[in-house]
Amino acid sequence: MQLERLDMSSFANLVSPLNKGLGLLDRAQEPGEIARRGWNLLHEDLTLPAAVLYQDMLLHNLDWMQGFISTYGMSLAPHGKTTMAPHLFEMQLRHGAWGITLATAHQTLVAYLHGVRRVIMANQLIGRENMAVIARLLQDEKFDFYCLVDSAAQVEQLGSYFSNCRQHLQVMIELGVMGGRSGVRDDEQLQTLLTALAHWRETLLLRGIELYEGVLDDEASIRSFLCRAVDLARRLDAEGRFPRTPILLSGAGSAWYDVVAEEFSAANLGDRFHVILRPGCYLTHDVGAYRQAQAGILDRNPVARKMREGLLPALQIWAYVQSVPEAERAIIALGKRDAAFDSGLPVPALHFRFGHVSPKASPSHWKLTKMMDQHAYMQMSQGDDLRVGDMIGFDICHPCLTFDKWRTIPILDSRYQVVDIVQTFF
Amino acid sequence: MQLERLDMSSFANLVSPLNKGLGLLDRAQEPGEIARRGWNLLHEDLTLPAAVLYQDMLLHNLDWMQGFISTYGMSLAPHGKTTMAPHLFEMQLRHGAWGITLATAHQTLVAYLHGVRRVIMANQLIGRENMAVIARLLQDEKFDFYCLVDSAAQVEQLGSYFSNCRQHLQVMIELGVMGGRSGVRDDEQLQTLLTALAHWRETLLLRGIELYEGVLDDEASIRSFLCRAVDLARRLDAEGRFPRTPILLSGAGSAWYDVVAEEFSAANLGDRFHVILRPGCYLTHDVGAYRQAQAGILDRNPVARKMREGLLPALQIWAYVQSVPEAERAIIALGKRDAAFDSGLPVPALHFRFGHVSPKASPSHWKLTKMMDQHAYMQMSQGDDLRVGDMIGFDICHPCLTFDKWRTIPILDSRYQVVDIVQTFF
Repeated sequence: MQLERLDMSSFANLVSPLNKGLGLLDRAQEPGEIARRGWNLLHEDLTLPAAVLYQDMLLHNLDWMQGFISTYGMSLAPHGKTTMAPHLFEMQLRHGAWGITLATAHQTLVAYLHGVRRVIMANQLIGRENMAVIARLLQDEKFDFYCLVDSAAQVEQLGSYFSNCRQHLQVMIELGVMGGRSGVRDDEQLQTLLTALAHWRETLLLRGIELYEGVLDDEASIRSFLCRAVDLARRLDAEGRFPRTPILLSGAGSAWYDVVAEEFSAANLGDRFHVILRPGCYLTHDVGAYRQAQAGILDRNPVARKMREGLLPALQIWAYVQSVPEAERAIIALGKRDAAFDSGLPVPALHFRFGHVSPKASPSHWKLTKMMDQHAYMQMSQGDDLRVGDMIGFDICHPCLTFDKWRTIPILDSRYQVVDIVQTFF
Repeated sequence: MQLERLDMSSFANLVSPLNKGLGLLDRAQEPGEIARRGWNLLHEDLTLPAAVLYQDMLLHNLDWMQGFISTYGMSLAPHGKTTMAPHLFEMQLRHGAWGITLATAHQTLVAYLHGVRRVIMANQLIGRENMAVIARLLQDEKFDFYCLVDSAAQVEQLGSYFSNCRQHLQVMIELGVMGGRSGVRDDEQLQTLLTALAHWRETLLLRGIELYEGVLDDEASIRSFLCRAVDLARRLDAEGRFPRTPILLSGAGSAWYDVVAEEFSAANLGDRFHVILRPGCYLTHDVGAYRQAQAGILDRNPVARKMREGLLPALQIWAYVQSVPEAERAIIALGKRDAAFDSGLPVPALHFRFGHVSPKASPSHWKLTKMMDQHAYMQMSQGDDLRVGDMIGFDICHPCLTFDKWRTIPILDSRYQVVDIVQTFF
């Protein structure tokens, strides 16, 4: 199969009327066409539960992170696996992102077919058909692609496959820590890996060093891990292991990007190196682990402290109260099918009753206590003004596992009007 | 919008090449066309991770449950929210299911548009646009639809909406228990509900009683809950509350269907009543909570004991070993994006190395210890024969939250050949 046959026009980039969380459509339509229908959340034009993105907060977060990273003179390659929404990738690139980070060959294919031309696949590329996907995309010389290596066995497989294709593959060495995820643990593993890379030097181009500091959870260990990456990058450069400059140095998930920026900045690496940070969850933020992490960042980082506000939660799930069977219990038509539940349950934020002018903040004592596949239990107090048919807007914890529950997510303006539609491709 | 405009032909029922877990496609194709490509899992024709269904086990499970329910002279309306795969609904109906159970208006729309003409929406129908979806489907007089009511407030909303549409809506009273989910708790709630139903009797047709016994977790409470449902059904029949026969009596999730069958059978309800059971997870089964529940059923139920085997796990996720960075730790390219993790992590079942004839059982000490969004940590022993690039087939726990991670799932024959493709619509 040739790359030229893989173009988006043949894939009918239409929103299916079979997707949940929209109004009823009588045919597949383009996102722009749907956005012009004038749907409004508060007019009950959407079938709830529905996930929604708030345009103002999205734009704020886009600017915030791009501003933060630029202040350090570094580049942003936001992790796209969080949203898998090419329309959001496009917004990130338009706001100055250097490229998009992804986790799998499939995700890379989706991004490529929506126009993304620079990808760090921050993961090992494994398996014949996954390699075939990447090999086909690499037929486009404009496609700038990097993936990770951490073992001689993997290097053998990549080298053999891509040399058969007569293609070059740009790779970065992943550093890891004992008890962590993938990545080279020690010098012995490193030497074996370097030997294998030397063997395949005509095929595999070593372009840099990568790590994911989020496998650690204390600042001191993270700073020391980052120094190890800097030292290794310098050492391999001195040994002439990198056939091209700039040499890429990349780290940073969504919880410690400030510490990564500080350490890589303090290293004064100079022009031969290019630092790339990869947070992904900043785009929608959350009210769980990432809000907590952001509080830490605003507390310890002087650059972040000087910026306007912090990140804002830009993703909510709206759902109906379907039953109030006990004085202190409401049943919400929202379940594990609709929102992440692995690092905190969704948090009631807004309460709206049809006919009212606008939503109001929901009482702080309303709280989800349990989620089933399609239902949630909400604890309330006797006498609270809550009725069957009321709408509740929930902030979420863990954007990644919320996005993958939705194929279509409307973007709302500040009047809750649908102004755009985002499609996901998981 | 008129119903006749809502037909499947306009929705292009094609598999997108943007879906994960398939081989590379250069255009959208029909499932049948893909099935004829000759893909084989063991030839690495699929991009892993991939979810697969085993045809033999599916057929076994279909027969098993239909046989069990038929022995009791009851009807099966399998819960479709488990799979949201219309092709599997079609198999269930062809094997004798009376209808399909669903949880939301959106799910009902998906089923209808794929040809399902009898649905129990085992949930309260709430919200203007959700009611609009059902109202449009009810324009088809052949569409036999039932949903639940449990409060006067909800009955007012339904009555008002559907009387405006000049349509009838068939409803069932949901019984609930204190500390449980939705459903009428006590006689006071019941009387208020019955009064509201009487007010809307021209619009809302009371067709039966429903419960979900799975909110309880001990057999004695469940049996007593079931007796309460039988008593109520008889009492309301004696009071002339049901305008039509048969009167529907429905219960049973995937863990206690035998107890429901026993109690409803022992009640000798006679011809005026029609009992409908709604398990959903039986179709693929799992190696977690449902295997445990099945063991209980085979232990206590004489009908189940007499049948050939029990249910078999029919759904697996295949993934690559991407790194073996420590002697006792392998990193698997499989994450929370690919499989349920809320009632047990996936369980390594099969191990395959490209070039070998067939997979073999993986050692029982291999075990996932942690899952991240796109990775899993597998514990192993030093010296185990496991390499980067090996494939592992994982049994899963909780089918519902595994299905919703996949848009396309190949069905494999016993030689791991792709013989069919199932699409999901979440």
